[in-house]
Amino acid sequence: MCALIVIFLVAVLVTVESHDEYESALFQRTQLLERGLNMMLGNDLELSDAEEQVNEYIMELKRDEVDFGFSHPQHFNYSKHFFDYKDEVQHTQLFKIIKQMPKGALLHAHDTGMLSPEYVMTLTYLENLYVCFEEETVKFLFARELPTSDCSTQWQLMRDARYSSGNVEKFDENLKKYFTLVIDDHSDIYTDINIVWKQFQDYFIRTTDLFTYEPVWEQYFYDTLKALREDNVMYLEIRSVLPGLYDLDGNVYDEMETLASYKRVIDRFSKDYPDFFGAKIIFAPLRSVQPETVKEYLQKAKIMKREYAGIFAGFDLVGQEDLGRPTKDFLKELITEAEDIDFFFHAGETNWYGTSSDENLVDAIVLNARRIGHAFALIKHPVLLEEVKKRNIAIEANVISNVVLKLVEDMRNHPLASFIAQGLPVVLASDDPGIWGADPLSLDFFVTFVGVASRHADLRLLKKLALNSLYYSTYSNKDKIVHEFDIRWARFIHNIQTNHL
Amino acid sequence: MCALIVIFLVAVLVTVESHDEYESALFQRTQLLERGLNMMLGNDLELSDAEEQVNEYIMELKRDEVDFGFSHPQHFNYSKHFFDYKDEVQHTQLFKIIKQMPKGALLHAHDTGMLSPEYVMTLTYLENLYVCFEEETVKFLFARELPTSDCSTQWQLMRDARYSSGNVEKFDENLKKYFTLVIDDHSDIYTDINIVWKQFQDYFIRTTDLFTYEPVWEQYFYDTLKALREDNVMYLEIRSVLPGLYDLDGNVYDEMETLASYKRVIDRFSKDYPDFFGAKIIFAPLRSVQPETVKEYLQKAKIMKREYAGIFAGFDLVGQEDLGRPTKDFLKELITEAEDIDFFFHAGETNWYGTSSDENLVDAIVLNARRIGHAFALIKHPVLLEEVKKRNIAIEANVISNVVLKLVEDMRNHPLASFIAQGLPVVLASDDPGIWGADPLSLDFFVTFVGVASRHADLRLLKKLALNSLYYSTYSNKDKIVHEFDIRWARFIHNIQTNHL
Repeated sequence: MCALIVIFLVAVLVTVESHDEYESALFQRTQLLERGLNMMLGNDLELSDAEEQVNEYIMELKRDEVDFGFSHPQHFNYSKHFFDYKDEVQHTQLFKIIKQMPKGALLHAHDTGMLSPEYVMTLTYLENLYVCFEEETVKFLFARELPTSDCSTQWQLMRDARYSSGNVEKFDENLKKYFTLVIDDHSDIYTDINIVWKQFQDYFIRTTDLFTYEPVWEQYFYDTLKALREDNVMYLEIRSVLPGLYDLDGNVYDEMETLASYKRVIDRFSKDYPDFFGAKIIFAPLRSVQPETVKEYLQKAKIMKREYAGIFAGFDLVGQEDLGRPTKDFLKELITEAEDIDFFFHAGETNWYGTSSDENLVDAIVLNARRIGHAFALIKHPVLLEEVKKRNIAIEANVISNVVLKLVEDMRNHPLASFIAQGLPVVLASDDPGIWGADPLSLDFFVTFVGVASRHADLRLLKKLALNSLYYSTYSNKDKIVHEFDIRWARFIHNIQTNHL
Repeated sequence: MCALIVIFLVAVLVTVESHDEYESALFQRTQLLERGLNMMLGNDLELSDAEEQVNEYIMELKRDEVDFGFSHPQHFNYSKHFFDYKDEVQHTQLFKIIKQMPKGALLHAHDTGMLSPEYVMTLTYLENLYVCFEEETVKFLFARELPTSDCSTQWQLMRDARYSSGNVEKFDENLKKYFTLVIDDHSDIYTDINIVWKQFQDYFIRTTDLFTYEPVWEQYFYDTLKALREDNVMYLEIRSVLPGLYDLDGNVYDEMETLASYKRVIDRFSKDYPDFFGAKIIFAPLRSVQPETVKEYLQKAKIMKREYAGIFAGFDLVGQEDLGRPTKDFLKELITEAEDIDFFFHAGETNWYGTSSDENLVDAIVLNARRIGHAFALIKHPVLLEEVKKRNIAIEANVISNVVLKLVEDMRNHPLASFIAQGLPVVLASDDPGIWGADPLSLDFFVTFVGVASRHADLRLLKKLALNSLYYSTYSNKDKIVHEFDIRWARFIHNIQTNHL
């Protein structure tokens, strides 16, 4: 009898103990997961009751998509190439909501990569445009008379070329291909990073004389601002090589005139749309040059800053990092001006770990960049990552660009997932959305939300990303712009409540 | 004159100041990069003069390959699928050296996925083997007489099927396809993770009755140990579902007999090759079961531990995490035994961030796993990553497996790069190398060295990864095995010096 009681008591004790162990494991489990969630970007924000309601609604839409992908990975878009789903997702309810959402500022984009091939096509219908079709490319020039510049075939009026082609539709279809990277058979054609980068850079070379005709330049930029405003972006900092503009008489102007042209457009647009908060220019000339040229760039930048203080944001260098010169080569020239000029360097837009282009990250940090463009490779540099956090340098993530330019295939492997998890100061940007047929910014928000971030990442992440784009901008009156953002955000929340809940 | 002197002095001062700034920037740059290098896995090791010489030689070979890829990304193998380069790289000098290199222990591999399709083909030439060809698969059974078990066509002696086929070569070629995932048109066929996982699991189902015939079982395992020894691996911890074995009379034995069979082979092999340090078994049954079944698993595991203490390493659960049950479902059952049984859970072998399978990582930690299999998703969980570091839980990385099973496409995006950069306790493993036509471990070392780690990662990383596999094993006499490793390592270094320098 006594033995039985002892056995019973031991059994009870074992049960109690194992129950306690389980409770404690569960507790520990919850704690660890919660600490992770607390660290996540945006999770420091408190949502209002109205926001909570909207959050529940959009999280339902998001979870539907993620959970469907989880069960049917063959149909999950964000593990595929952007071209394969970009049109489809724009019909989803969640995308439409993100489109309406105030997204703050666009801080990483290149001026002549903003608008769609359809838009660029309309420019080819303008008067006085000449065209030269060469073997694999095409040249443009606006002029009063037949151009005499280099053409291996012959210059002809675009209008004549188009209407003598016999099939205008076909002609336009072929012409449009020069204004986009989007093709159906992308996986057969874009087999490595350098091939797609060549196409990408050829676009810029090819369109230069189409865009730098002064009236076109101003129209393109005006329409860029318009597209941003319609995408619910309120402010822009745009990178430009500041190419020389020209007129019909063959006059060519310098980069100061280009900046003046930008100022005219910004002033005109702000007058036409006083609810837009304007734009600033980051002077970002090509990196594939000698150090002396960078020195000249910087002298120009200082003049720009003095003469166009209101619209000059700072300095960067552009071009494929792997093929251009590493930033280190210009360290001496750049450090001399680091006190005077704000830097916004492209860095770490590479997969080549431990190479000279990979090291551009350390130079961006040493040079006290305010923001770093891409920083894709930062995940492989824990010391630099800590430094970025400590110095509060913002990371301009461009997830769609990184897929198109072949840094990563499956969006779920984009290092941004980890940056968000660590609560790094991230802003979302779109780089050159026109070239890959994306809208100015909404698709980058959408894809990040559904394809990159955790299934648990919610409205707070979206709001934080938008707010970050204001905090890390160079817009001078932060209180004003954030206040206006808050008003628009409240209106957005109210609209969703009214129309969907 | 005085004005000129002042201007001169100011100019000198400005020059000096900007020179100082540059020097200080350079210094800071070097410091940051050095701190990064110091943190990198293996960089705490000091190399001897002889090792330094060998290091210079292998780094030359490595840099040649990386730098060629940098200039010709279309020819860089490790951004491509493993099947596209696996044969080619085995002819390189660097691979041959890594093949010779002592690699310590293999700690993450599955028992019936170790040997090549060519090897498995030899098993189909054994006596008493019957075969049943069904629509998309094939069944095997060793028996004295025509099997009566389920077959939608008909059972026939393998010998008869083969020699009545009219074309033995063609017959064998077709048969071999059942024993491998390697196909030429993999990018068309393996379009998503579930498709390739299905093929992968079908391999295991299909080969079960081929392998579980007791004489074959023992031969396969003996030959696995032999292949490991030839690949310069000195010790093994292998996962097994411990399937029931059978004999020609149709007797079926339980998992204890399978363990007994393993013990016999290990003893025999150790006698035949006393320079091998033996093997232990991780009991790793299927995870797609009810909690009560896991409880039964664990009861069996406890008996195994008691009765086969010398070869029983611990417990794990196997099967595709995304489709199986999450570990959380078994937390109660598992935590009860966490004191008694060592855990080596698969966790985070997923791209589905924030889902139940992703959370297996937290359970592995809470359950105090000694090592975690894969932990691919850990990069997205900074809190768990810190915990792994703090608790010194080893990460068993299987980079080739992760590409074949479609977690990542470009090896350079594998999170292992970041784990190595952070100095996490990593060991390299090969998962199921036979199924993708890799050797037991060398290719995983090679690909990690050239395709995943930094261009700067050198012999110290390779040595540390090998040493880690000993430290994080359950081999009881660490001093002995490390001492022997050191002897073999010295011999390896000496051989390279003698033959290549």
